[in-house]
Amino acid sequence: MSTEIHSPLSGIIPPLVTPLLGNDTLDVASLENLIEHLIAGGVHGLFILGTTGEEQSLSYRLRKEMIAETCRINAGRLPVLVCITDTSLVESAALAAYAADHGASAVVSAAPYYFAPAQPELVEFYEDLLPHLPLPLFLYNMPSHVKVNFAPSTIRRIAENSKVIGFKDSSANLPYFQSVKYIMRDRPDFSMLMGPEEVTGESVLMGGNGGINGGANMFPELYVAMYNAAHAGNVAEVRRLQQLIMQISASIYSVGSYGSSYLKGLKCACSLLGVIKDDFVAAPFHKFNEPERRKIREALDALPIKDGKIIL
Amino acid sequence: MSTEIHSPLSGIIPPLVTPLLGNDTLDVASLENLIEHLIAGGVHGLFILGTTGEEQSLSYRLRKEMIAETCRINAGRLPVLVCITDTSLVESAALAAYAADHGASAVVSAAPYYFAPAQPELVEFYEDLLPHLPLPLFLYNMPSHVKVNFAPSTIRRIAENSKVIGFKDSSANLPYFQSVKYIMRDRPDFSMLMGPEEVTGESVLMGGNGGINGGANMFPELYVAMYNAAHAGNVAEVRRLQQLIMQISASIYSVGSYGSSYLKGLKCACSLLGVIKDDFVAAPFHKFNEPERRKIREALDALPIKDGKIIL
Amino acid sequence: MSTEIHSPLSGIIPPLVTPLLGNDTLDVASLENLIEHLIAGGVHGLFILGTTGEEQSLSYRLRKEMIAETCRINAGRLPVLVCITDTSLVESAALAAYAADHGASAVVSAAPYYFAPAQPELVEFYEDLLPHLPLPLFLYNMPSHVKVNFAPSTIRRIAENSKVIGFKDSSANLPYFQSVKYIMRDRPDFSMLMGPEEVTGESVLMGGNGGINGGANMFPELYVAMYNAAHAGNVAEVRRLQQLIMQISASIYSVGSYGSSYLKGLKCACSLLGVIKDDFVAAPFHKFNEPERRKIREALDALPIKDGKIIL
Amino acid sequence: MSTEIHSPLSGIIPPLVTPLLGNDTLDVASLENLIEHLIAGGVHGLFILGTTGEEQSLSYRLRKEMIAETCRINAGRLPVLVCITDTSLVESAALAAYAADHGASAVVSAAPYYFAPAQPELVEFYEDLLPHLPLPLFLYNMPSHVKVNFAPSTIRRIAENSKVIGFKDSSANLPYFQSVKYIMRDRPDFSMLMGPEEVTGESVLMGGNGGINGGANMFPELYVAMYNAAHAGNVAEVRRLQQLIMQISASIYSVGSYGSSYLKGLKCACSLLGVIKDDFVAAPFHKFNEPERRKIREALDALPIKDGKIIL
Repeated sequence: MSTEIHSPLSGIIPPLVTPLLGNDTLDVASLENLIEHLIAGGVHGLFILGTTGEEQSLSYRLRKEMIAETCRINAGRLPVLVCITDTSLVESAALAAYAADHGASAVVSAAPYYFAPAQPELVEFYEDLLPHLPLPLFLYNMPSHVKVNFAPSTIRRIAENSKVIGFKDSSANLPYFQSVKYIMRDRPDFSMLMGPEEVTGESVLMGGNGGINGGANMFPELYVAMYNAAHAGNVAEVRRLQQLIMQISASIYSVGSYGSSYLKGLKCACSLLGVIKDDFVAAPFHKFNEPERRKIREALDALPIKDGKIIL
Repeated sequence: MSTEIHSPLSGIIPPLVTPLLGNDTLDVASLENLIEHLIAGGVHGLFILGTTGEEQSLSYRLRKEMIAETCRINAGRLPVLVCITDTSLVESAALAAYAADHGASAVVSAAPYYFAPAQPELVEFYEDLLPHLPLPLFLYNMPSHVKVNFAPSTIRRIAENSKVIGFKDSSANLPYFQSVKYIMRDRPDFSMLMGPEEVTGESVLMGGNGGINGGANMFPELYVAMYNAAHAGNVAEVRRLQQLIMQISASIYSVGSYGSSYLKGLKCACSLLGVIKDDFVAAPFHKFNEPERRKIREALDALPIKDGKIIL
Repeated sequence: MSTEIHSPLSGIIPPLVTPLLGNDTLDVASLENLIEHLIAGGVHGLFILGTTGEEQSLSYRLRKEMIAETCRINAGRLPVLVCITDTSLVESAALAAYAADHGASAVVSAAPYYFAPAQPELVEFYEDLLPHLPLPLFLYNMPSHVKVNFAPSTIRRIAENSKVIGFKDSSANLPYFQSVKYIMRDRPDFSMLMGPEEVTGESVLMGGNGGINGGANMFPELYVAMYNAAHAGNVAEVRRLQQLIMQISASIYSVGSYGSSYLKGLKCACSLLGVIKDDFVAAPFHKFNEPERRKIREALDALPIKDGKIIL
Repeated sequence: MSTEIHSPLSGIIPPLVTPLLGNDTLDVASLENLIEHLIAGGVHGLFILGTTGEEQSLSYRLRKEMIAETCRINAGRLPVLVCITDTSLVESAALAAYAADHGASAVVSAAPYYFAPAQPELVEFYEDLLPHLPLPLFLYNMPSHVKVNFAPSTIRRIAENSKVIGFKDSSANLPYFQSVKYIMRDRPDFSMLMGPEEVTGESVLMGGNGGINGGANMFPELYVAMYNAAHAGNVAEVRRLQQLIMQISASIYSVGSYGSSYLKGLKCACSLLGVIKDDFVAAPFHKFNEPERRKIREALDALPIKDGKIIL
């Protein structure tokens, strides 16, 4: 039971955390809880197995379980986007087939991340991959993790294939995002989605289509409200909500001094909020210990939360 | 004759190109022309010897000539901001003293750029430098050129000295810019200025104070109009003007395949527009040859220009 | 049928190219030819599924086929080292179990390469992984591809587990290699192996244990001769052979301008020399087209080759 | 009184620390002591105002004083190499003229380090600079500080000018060093010098010409002995001395966790050994505080030192 995407895909499509009980154990009950929480919060789609979803840390078996369970629980209510980012074209294609079979709406692919292909090699890679994909494709720019940046002209080239319907940018480089939007300006159906929630508001004010914002796992209403305000051009409201989003970013994603603090902090907060049961983080990471967990609790206490929801 | 800055400094403060006739020859007539062009275009300040102004490529003699001539021509009409970025504290302090003596309003400093100081070393460096500065200071974040990024908490620390009155960010990383703005949220007098013109509009919509935009050397009215629209919260107008700004960025700053294409393209366009006479670029660079110059001419021809001004 | 490793593992252990007929088709006949060629050339071990072996580009099914076939063909003649580098601990452990079942001698692991773990997280990762490994482990430093560098003190910590018997360094940073060797100086059984063939000679002169040199796929005798000369402290012979190795490096690994030129050039040369049949390179790459292939042929023609062997 | 260089310049040419009493105060007495210490230790040249000499942190006035005083004290006994690395061609040329006037033997230049020139721009820069240089030139590769790496083919191109007589590499990338040596193989007069002391021995064994080793400020005899052993092909002696060099590297250059630990540790050790009076480090750095100074003292105590000299 797949939900067709109305192009351009717009709104808040949270990158779901993957609720785990161990390195190879999906917590299906928490996944159900999380999805109902998100749908109740008004989000516009579900994005699974992204960086926030720890795709690369999970076994292929668990990735498939996550796809199947998400599609089952969602039951066609929202579009489901499945990350198939992989270093192997064969494995990417296999995940895409699995996603299609279980009712996903689209797949998402960042560049292969062991070797660092040059731009013409990226074009060739997607020319090779696209015939294997039974679903529409979103390109995903994530240079900090995959080491290469999609040049705007590369995106333009790859998107000549009409299967390519959108782009998610997690580079945090907004002049770059504007360049991609400009080079795609004759394709109003092409969805331009922002990764970092700290700048989703402004990108939507400027004509972007929405955000793949991790914080929506905790507080979907907040990010949906931000999207709605920005989409309506309500600058004052965007700036008001931005303060809350920055407070979350500054207090929940920056505990500890490693690059993993975003992921550990987000999962920890989700478990403290009761959205998921355990904040187990798959290897190579471990969840926070008690001192860091206490800081997350304090950060949550400082937010205007009532009955688990943020007061807007 | 110095113009005092009303904090927070706001608006469009163009980073002036340095008109040259040779590696060590300032073109004073072109500098006069440029400054009158900018003032007529409504800009809110003059920013000299920045990256666009090729400070590091110039002799100290010429840097001083540029300071003295700019202050003389400006004659107190606008605030003049002088970059004193240097690897040597002693030379930085000497430039600051010279700038003060000639009537500049403030100085601007990016981190020392040979060694890459750690964050606590950055704090110490500015603690050492500040007592030598006779003018207010703007911090300037330029990690692509100086290799270090000011952590938001480092800025907060340095700005405990009230001489530090603002921040220019050329990192192109907007979540970072938002983080700095958030950590400085109790300092409404602290000026938050954006380098890349491709995102100045959105940053001002979100509460930023303005832009240090190179394109304003060519078309000051355009960038001032963008600032005014964003400052007024006129989203539709911001998005309309953004298209022109993106067209300039895509066609004038990306001729040739090197990192120097922005600087060479901007100076070339300024000379074609008659704003400066020659587009000489100081070593280690050379100005464009005829094939690239032709592309810049075509890019200008494609813009809605009448009598040297862009039609808004 | 596994060959036990006499510690420290020493000599030339070539990182086998993976002979392919398509993205998911192993060329078993060529693999047989390659392995016999290497054993006849006097190498001291077989290293499969490394960067040169394109592990990350291959499906798990093909990785397993490569393990099983290599062990079958080798039939216990040489130690077989199997790369299990993965972003998922679960998949890494599964490959290690498969390798043990089929008679491999050891496994090799570079850091997980999607997220970039901090040094304490790297220590934890290997503490988590090691109990799952039925074979001895070599650590593999490959910062250009995995984004993190094993700090010498991290290696020291991980190697407190006696299962960890050696280290391969492909950082090309020889002061770093010396630092690791120095911190491990009380462990003469710990094998210190060099990746880049351009510096294997000098590293063995200084007490290193050998090389994982891609060029040995083409000319195993040359690299074995280099190792023997360096091990014997014969400086004149090392410097003589170094000229041949540099000629190969300069002419075969640098055709084309992308990072993939080493891999494409090596496979192309292997096919021209008849060591493997086809030089198919797995996605995201493609093998060389005819113009590049011609350059490789010319490079081979310029080498002192007789009957497919280099004249030493 | 200048000493002519017999090409290729060979041996140990220490990069002198600059003895300071303040940010703009040269300690001439300590400089005299240091130079006599080095000459007594048997070094083959003096290299001033390099990275170890903190050129970029010093005022131009002090740089000139350092040139004049070094040449005066040296009094023609050894070749003096003067770093003229600068972001401004005009200032580079001025320093070179000053060095020539005071009797230096050669100048040394790393790439301009604010902008990051592309390879063809680097070639142009040196084509522009060379006519201004009254002395022979050594190129200096220092990518960690200047952001660009001289491609081997770029060095080849620049060295077509016979004024270019050598190359110092501080990249720590030995395959790269071998590539440069290979591309220059028909120029036996071209001096190939190594920066990092941890690999100078092996590079000389392989045919390199010597080292610009910071540790020689402390213990010139050790590095000279290493050079002599390597030059003579005495592998056992090289490996024996290498242990001492690694002990120094591991204990003196790695106190504290910043990139500045090498410089601070070296200067601190020099002052503890009585080679220079004060270990003042110019801004942006500060010298070690007492806890770090104690660790350096312990590191020195652990070395086999008698009467301020290392026992070989």
